[in-house]
This record gives sequence, C-alpha cells and structure tokens, in this order.
Amino acid sequence: MVDQIPTFEGPVCPLPLKNETTIVMGHGSGGLMTHNLIQEVFQAHFQNSFIKAGNDFANTPIPDTNPNGRLSISTDGHIISPIFFPGGDIGRLAICGTVNDISMSGSTPLYITASFILEEGLQITDLERIAFSMQKTAEEAGVEIVAGDTKVVEKGKGDGIFISTTGIGWLPNNVEIRGDLAQPGDVILVSGTIGDHGIAVLSARGDLGFETDLKSDVAPLNQLIQSLIETIPEIHVLRDPTRGGLATTLNEIARQSNVGLMIYDEMIPVNSTVQSACEMLGFDPLYVANEGKVVVILSKEYKEKALEIMRLNDHGKNAAFIGEVVPIHPGHVVLRTSFGTTRMLEMMSGEMLPRIC
Amino acid sequence: MVDQIPTFEGPVCPLPLKNETTIVMGHGSGGLMTHNLIQEVFQAHFQNSFIKAGNDFANTPIPDTNPNGRLSISTDGHIISPIFFPGGDIGRLAICGTVNDISMSGSTPLYITASFILEEGLQITDLERIAFSMQKTAEEAGVEIVAGDTKVVEKGKGDGIFISTTGIGWLPNNVEIRGDLAQPGDVILVSGTIGDHGIAVLSARGDLGFETDLKSDVAPLNQLIQSLIETIPEIHVLRDPTRGGLATTLNEIARQSNVGLMIYDEMIPVNSTVQSACEMLGFDPLYVANEGKVVVILSKEYKEKALEIMRLNDHGKNAAFIGEVVPIHPGHVVLRTSFGTTRMLEMMSGEMLPRIC
Repeated sequence: MVDQIPTFEGPVCPLPLKNETTIVMGHGSGGLMTHNLIQEVFQAHFQNSFIKAGNDFANTPIPDTNPNGRLSISTDGHIISPIFFPGGDIGRLAICGTVNDISMSGSTPLYITASFILEEGLQITDLERIAFSMQKTAEEAGVEIVAGDTKVVEKGKGDGIFISTTGIGWLPNNVEIRGDLAQPGDVILVSGTIGDHGIAVLSARGDLGFETDLKSDVAPLNQLIQSLIETIPEIHVLRDPTRGGLATTLNEIARQSNVGLMIYDEMIPVNSTVQSACEMLGFDPLYVANEGKVVVILSKEYKEKALEIMRLNDHGKNAAFIGEVVPIHPGHVVLRTSFGTTRMLEMMSGEMLPRIC
Repeated sequence: MVDQIPTFEGPVCPLPLKNETTIVMGHGSGGLMTHNLIQEVFQAHFQNSFIKAGNDFANTPIPDTNPNGRLSISTDGHIISPIFFPGGDIGRLAICGTVNDISMSGSTPLYITASFILEEGLQITDLERIAFSMQKTAEEAGVEIVAGDTKVVEKGKGDGIFISTTGIGWLPNNVEIRGDLAQPGDVILVSGTIGDHGIAVLSARGDLGFETDLKSDVAPLNQLIQSLIETIPEIHVLRDPTRGGLATTLNEIARQSNVGLMIYDEMIPVNSTVQSACEMLGFDPLYVANEGKVVVILSKEYKEKALEIMRLNDHGKNAAFIGEVVPIHPGHVVLRTSFGTTRMLEMMSGEMLPRIC
C-alpha cells in the first residue's frame, strides 16, 4: 500500500498523435495513439454498431432460438508475403479464409473478429487499404467484423502485418457435414481450377521469371455453399484445399473417413498458366494452395445437380467431377492417370511455398 | 484444363517429421509436419472433443435457448516479451486476457480459439510448456479451447511466438454492463494492487537492476465477476485496466459515459515493490499494465457488499474503494492527492512499456 504517488508531469513519451504515416511503437500502447489508430483506420472502415460501441467485446444476437442449433467457431492466422498480390491482399484473404472455414461445416458465417500484429514502420496507407478491403470482402460475404485488437512489435520482430481472424457461424439442426462422413460410392467434385492462389503469390514475389495475368482465386464461398445445401440433401463432406493443396486435403478426408479416394488426373481442372509455371518450377499443382475452392463429396445421384448449382456461381464456373470414394486403400488417396496407371498421392510433408496464406 | 500432370516423385522438401526440437518452416506448411505438430503439442494438451475431431471448425452447443440472450465475442493479440515471466507466460496471459475481456460485459466465457504465429527456431519444449499452461488456465477459468491454427514465419520475421485468442461467451438477458453506464453518485472500486504485471515483466527483462519476488497478477477474473453479478443487482461498469493502466481505463470510461471520475490517490492499492520500482524508473503505477484486476463501478449502496465479495476471492483480496463518479469534468479523470490538491489524469499518449501483453 502506498501513501503518496510520486510527482508526475503527464504520460511518459508524448509522441505526436496525428498525421503519422508509419506505424510506431506507440500505436500498440493501448493509450491515446492506439485509440486514434483504431478510430481513424479501423472504425472508419469496419462500420457496424458493435465496433462503434468501443467496448472490448461485442454482444451479438444469435440468429435462431432452436435449442438444438449449434455455434460454429473457427480461427486462422494470416502471414502471407507479399501483403498485396494479384487478385487480393492479406485483408481479403483473412476474411475469406475464415468465412470459408466456417462454411465448410455447412454453417452460415455471421461474425468475424480480427487481431492485428503490426510491425513498426508499416505504412498507415497500407493498413487503410487492408482495412478497406476487409470491409468490402465482409460485405460481399454478408458477415460483420464485430471486434478487433491491435498490437505493435519493433522493426525486425514482425513482418509488416499479421492478421488472425476468428469466425462465428450458426449451424442449423438438420445439417451434418464433416470430414469423417465420406462413404464408398460418393463422388468427389471440386469447384474450379486448382493452384491459382499459390502461383499468383509466387508471381507477385517475382519468383516466376515471367509476367502473367493470373490472379489469386481468393473468394468467400459461403453463398455457393449455401445454394448447394439448400438444394441437395446429401452432402457428406465440404473442405477447402488451402495450404498443402488438393492432395493434402483429400488425404485428410481419406484418413478422417477411413475410406479410399480415387481421383482422375485428366479430370482435375488446372489453368494453363498454373500448369506451365508448375512444370517450370518442378511443382505439382495438386500441392499448390487455393483460397477460393471447395472439395465437395456427396451421393452419386446428386452429382450433376451439384455441378450445375456450382457453375451458376461466379466462384464455381469451372466446377468439375474429379473422382470417387472407394472401399479399397482406406485412409489413402490414389491418382489414376489417363494411361491407366495409378500411384498413391501422399500428404505434403515439408514446406513447398512458405507464407502462402 | 490439363491433359497430363508432370512426373512427380513425391512431395517437395521431405524434411524429418519427428524428434524435431525447434520449429522449422515446414511446421507451417499445412502438410504432414503441421499435422504432427498439432497432434503432438496442441491436441496433447487441449483435450476436448472439438479439438480431437480434427476439423477446421468447432460446432458448439449454446448454453441457453432464450431468444433474448446474446453472444459475447472478443479478440486479443499477445506479443509479450519475454514469453515466460514471474507469475505466468504468454499462454496463461492469452487465456486470461480473453476470458477477462468477455467477463467485462457480464458474460460467462465458454469457448476460446487460439491462433499461433511461430518464428522458425522456437524451441518445441517452450511451445509445449505454453500449450500446457493454456490448458491449465482454461481449466481454472472453466472454458474450453475449441479451435486453433498454426503458422510459421522465417527467423527474423517474428519473435518466438505470438498468440491471438478469441473468446465467445453467453450474456443472460438481465445483465447490462457497459462502459457507457457510469452515473454520477456511483462508486469506483478496484480489485487489488495495480501495476504488478508491468513491473514483473520489466523485472523478467532485467530492466530493474535488482531482484524482486514480485509476480504478475495474470489471472482469470470470471469467477470473481460472476459472484459479484449474482449478488449485486446494480453493477454499471466492469473493465480490466490492462495496457495503459488504471488511468487509461478510467479515461475510456469517463469518455464513454460522459461523466467525471474523481479518484483518491491515497486509496489506490500499490504493492511496495511496484512503488519503489516506479519511483526509480520514473513511471507512474497508474499507467502500468495489470492482467488480473478489474475496475468496478456501481451504485453507492452496494459498495461494502461488493468489496466483501471481491475480498473472498483469491484474485480480489486487496480490493479497495478508490473514488466516485461526479457530475463535473465530464469525459475526464481527476486525481485528488492526500494534500487536497487535484490534477487531471490523462490517457496514456505514447508507449511506456512496449510488448507488455
């Protein structure tokens, strides 16, 4: 206990508060500079009553009062380099990544939180561009960014900006879609060309050695998925093939469901630029990251209907049938080539393209 | 579309998968190494059915079916340096920070997600120690860690480990506690000594120049707050004075409620070690961070009852009355000394102790 507080002439380190052009350590202090940053950058873009209330929490209504409904919760860190790339940026990626993770359970994504870890020296105009992109993407997906947090690390202890997003969605009673529900006889569909995101980011890094007009596929898939769920009663598995690519995602499903997955090489849609880049670099597009694609596994009878629904959506216009769930090789993925030969597709083991998401 | 996938002999960069002692880039690949890391470190500690299911989402029941109930959602990034300090570590801090933010709305925290951004070279034993500490703290608070994500950045692009946590809680109908509800005539209480966390972390950094037995106050406050809410009908504001300290938190409340806050210097509990350290370093304990304290603003008539309830809890045994809400100086905080003089307490403007949480 103390009798007297020492003389104190005001807060320590009074730094200039406005008209900053780069992030300084004071923006992470929790004091006035943090408040100004939040107000001028985040509150200006993330416009909803939860953010405006200025609390450390958002109290949100739930969309349904059915006692058997469930919340769907997912989180993801985003460390992509560079932070701007053809077709998107780290902000759009952060919203889409989380919206898509929530959607893969068949849930309707509702709320998003965003935690920013900024490196001292980040251009504030870059931060604004990212905040704007996040809000635009949230509107496109129909979700609200309801809470946020900002921390700042010293130059050399971070890399511009990292964003961790968490999504909260609502899962109606009658929907059961999970990685362990694939059954022999089911068909495997993918919503479009694979590997676009990974190769677009490599291109932005200047690693391709040639110019392309390829864009990342980064997109929110919740509306495409909602149309599928509304029409088709028997969707068993939905999963987005992000880091590790299609091959890794299929391996995860094969393990979770303890079934074999047989996929047909010549049926897998690949953009010709992605194909050329992969041949040149020695990559396999099956292991290259996507950020706007979904693998759909469902009863054979709904194959054509599902393809039709996906192709009506902008993010699903190249949707294709790529294989089947089989009772042999449980836990494994088998690739069949157009020559009739087969080989096991393993899960990616090391790191192919670091900092891709 | 592609006719043939080029010859491919297996995943790129097959790195050793087990018996790693430090984090390598492959742990962030999303492939087999990531899976092994998650299984061996996180699933081993975060034991609940949501994590075990191995999906990118957790579908959680909601605790109440009342249509007028609300979800409470909060997020926080944690970048503290060093990651281990007297009284806690970055894992305990991440759980407590989020549990406390959720609790400040009067909500019951239920679920936590954790996004890890690891720097290449982090010791895996350190990561395990942190995961263990998170689980232990989650159990202490009665919350479940239901979803997670792990990314890895190159050495020199991060700083060991950053953790962003998001909390989801449930707010019953009848509870309305917010920063804009302080009213003239209310009393201001604090749950114990201030500045312990900030000075304990400085001590761990070796910045004090002397040894202390001071420990951070980092603790989950949800149970203390629940006991207050269950007994006292008129709690107006709850807020935890973290970054920016008590002075900044009081300024936030004064602004949100548009009232004056008058606090009495000699009533504010400060540990003598914290007091000495602050005098030596030229800090004011009013601006030093806390991680296990709450400011309570409530009707005068419940003052003694509230202090009694707080003092029964381990984390509130030094709870004290520190001031009153006044109709003068709306939007400002006034400190009155034992000599009868007064001065305005401003919000912290720059950065005093970077990387404190």
